[in-house]
Amino acid sequence: MKKIDGWVTAPQGFLAAGVKAGIKASGNHDVAVIYSTVPAATGAVFTQNKMCAAPVLVSREVAQEAVAQAIIVNSGCANACTGEQGLLDAREMQAFAADLLGIEPQNVYVCSTGVIGHFLPMDKIKNGLADAVDVMDENEGESCAMAIQTTDTFIKRAAYEFEVGGKTSRIAGIAKGAGMIHPNMATMLTFLTTDAAIAPDVLKRAVKAAADKSFNMVVVDGDTSTNDSMIVLANGLAENEIIFSEEHPDYPAFFEALVTCAQDLAKLIARDGEGATKFLEVNVVGAATWKDAKAAAMAIAKSPLVKTAFFGEDPNWGRIVCAAGYSGAVMNADKVNLSIGGVRLVENGMNCNIPLTSLTDIMSEHDITMTIDMAAGNECATVWTCDFSYEYVKINGEYHT
Amino acid sequence: MKKIDGWVTAPQGFLAAGVKAGIKASGNHDVAVIYSTVPAATGAVFTQNKMCAAPVLVSREVAQEAVAQAIIVNSGCANACTGEQGLLDAREMQAFAADLLGIEPQNVYVCSTGVIGHFLPMDKIKNGLADAVDVMDENEGESCAMAIQTTDTFIKRAAYEFEVGGKTSRIAGIAKGAGMIHPNMATMLTFLTTDAAIAPDVLKRAVKAAADKSFNMVVVDGDTSTNDSMIVLANGLAENEIIFSEEHPDYPAFFEALVTCAQDLAKLIARDGEGATKFLEVNVVGAATWKDAKAAAMAIAKSPLVKTAFFGEDPNWGRIVCAAGYSGAVMNADKVNLSIGGVRLVENGMNCNIPLTSLTDIMSEHDITMTIDMAAGNECATVWTCDFSYEYVKINGEYHT
Repeated sequence: MKKIDGWVTAPQGFLAAGVKAGIKASGNHDVAVIYSTVPAATGAVFTQNKMCAAPVLVSREVAQEAVAQAIIVNSGCANACTGEQGLLDAREMQAFAADLLGIEPQNVYVCSTGVIGHFLPMDKIKNGLADAVDVMDENEGESCAMAIQTTDTFIKRAAYEFEVGGKTSRIAGIAKGAGMIHPNMATMLTFLTTDAAIAPDVLKRAVKAAADKSFNMVVVDGDTSTNDSMIVLANGLAENEIIFSEEHPDYPAFFEALVTCAQDLAKLIARDGEGATKFLEVNVVGAATWKDAKAAAMAIAKSPLVKTAFFGEDPNWGRIVCAAGYSGAVMNADKVNLSIGGVRLVENGMNCNIPLTSLTDIMSEHDITMTIDMAAGNECATVWTCDFSYEYVKINGEYHT
Repeated sequence: MKKIDGWVTAPQGFLAAGVKAGIKASGNHDVAVIYSTVPAATGAVFTQNKMCAAPVLVSREVAQEAVAQAIIVNSGCANACTGEQGLLDAREMQAFAADLLGIEPQNVYVCSTGVIGHFLPMDKIKNGLADAVDVMDENEGESCAMAIQTTDTFIKRAAYEFEVGGKTSRIAGIAKGAGMIHPNMATMLTFLTTDAAIAPDVLKRAVKAAADKSFNMVVVDGDTSTNDSMIVLANGLAENEIIFSEEHPDYPAFFEALVTCAQDLAKLIARDGEGATKFLEVNVVGAATWKDAKAAAMAIAKSPLVKTAFFGEDPNWGRIVCAAGYSGAVMNADKVNLSIGGVRLVENGMNCNIPLTSLTDIMSEHDITMTIDMAAGNECATVWTCDFSYEYVKINGEYHT
């Protein structure tokens, strides 16, 4: 497996485009389309938020199908908290795009991201979709990535080439998200394309498992948006023998590529956290269960006290141990160990009393890793997050709806 | 029931004191004692944090007893993450105070609050306890309250007089806490005294129920400390007929007084949240269960996005509805209503489109109430919290351990 320089059009048979449809006040790209020239196996996961947006309701139905062929996206308006009209709009957007592409509506995913509580400007959406379908090709991956962004400060993409069943396959993805997000802008969106051949039911399970190892392990502020979506299309044009089960000899290679690509994108989201000045990797080891490991890592990653401490470059181990303690995870308090940047600060639940000034260099780094051993078992989990800065308060407090 | 101006010595038979023992670098009061001249029924609740501090382990044993007679406290050092030595120190502190007071160690609660990871300075603790027992009387309630504080910006107290079984009884309490708390300072501590007569088993259940309606409904930053403790002593000197069950005719009057006093103290903690510029009351109504109502209210109160929006005086209803949506609580998304300061912003899950400038006055108030109707049942819950400001980041980010 090797990293390559590519967009979602890097795998064979994928076309894409992003256009300026006038939905964003900024005038930037705001309508995107990703299209597979042949029907593709599909898997997807969506927000668990009960106030989920209309496009999520529509896309959940698409995810039930064995195959899908297109993903259409608008940024600038989330189509969330828009009731029955919002649902009608999402379906109209889907049907309109399907017609343009000459495919069935149930094979077209619909995603929206942006301001909550406003109806989609349907004329702009339709004009944008028509333009996007008109110009989509293998060279418009970058404009497509631009059109799914809202407050992101940089474009998030990843692409890999890997061997599967004696064939060369590619997987590529783009993502957007930098908080729950920016004032009334919701959402983490990520779209992955691959030309690997894999059975739809196997892909659906693989996508869920990959999400649990990547996007579900990222915290910016702990808020889960109304529109979060991860969608994968696998069109089989690499012509590898179809991976028909998790026991198939080629499954591990495919899953590794999927997870690696998803983790790259997930980490980029944490790096682009609103106001972030640090990228933090929270490792929990020695947990009784994976669920416990994740709970402890999440509690640490979500703690405003931990996040502000890293912003202040203070190796405040008490807050980290405390957060693990209230996470609900089983821990052997008298045996807990904690390291920051490889330096042991807590051993057997007690202060090692090393001079904290010896961590000045580690704490001044942009990327910092911490590892806590719960001394309760053999399970582990890693969560990626960022610090909490004045800029976060500024972005989220000074903005006015 | 009427509010009175008093300290924990307001109920009959309680003595208290706070002294300067040199534990706090500031030189402020740092050792306190609360003593009942007769054995008192007792109930208490403690932190659920698995990294709970040594004094919590010791006080949990005291709470198992039918009666207790004293509470001793030090501030400046939490005696948390101190291992076996910490436990020995807490027990020594308990035995030393019991000896001074001429009572049994198992009737003496021990509490500590302050820096995590350091051993108690036992000589200073003992000298302080000797001084405090020496000077304790009915007029030292204020010095006692001062000695339990760490980063609090004001003293938190409440006192009520109420009729119970034809007798006049009093209940009074003090509290400390202003975050999980300040850099390495842990803890919410609260101590309530009453001269009402109530059976120990009934009191224990009443304290737990009262905590669920008061301190467990306060959020500053969502961090649960290693030392949180709520302790109640009821010495019976009001000579009302003993309340021997929840069905006793005097139980409602007692419970109302206990809950009111505890809620007053809980709200004061939210008001004193680190860097707080707003006091926020989050009401959830129409929930399927009380647990759901609390989960939704807590999700809203903990959301950094909601908290920064109030700091910015922005009625950002999308963030509030979104937080309720990811809380896990059942909600009828198409029927949800939301008001801020009595102004309806969301109806039937949709934006009411009222001009947000009409909320400028409400949002500029110090105290702001919001109410969300989940449209899923008849249960409700209220959580008190504060906003998230630059000052919070400053307090917690700029401090260095």
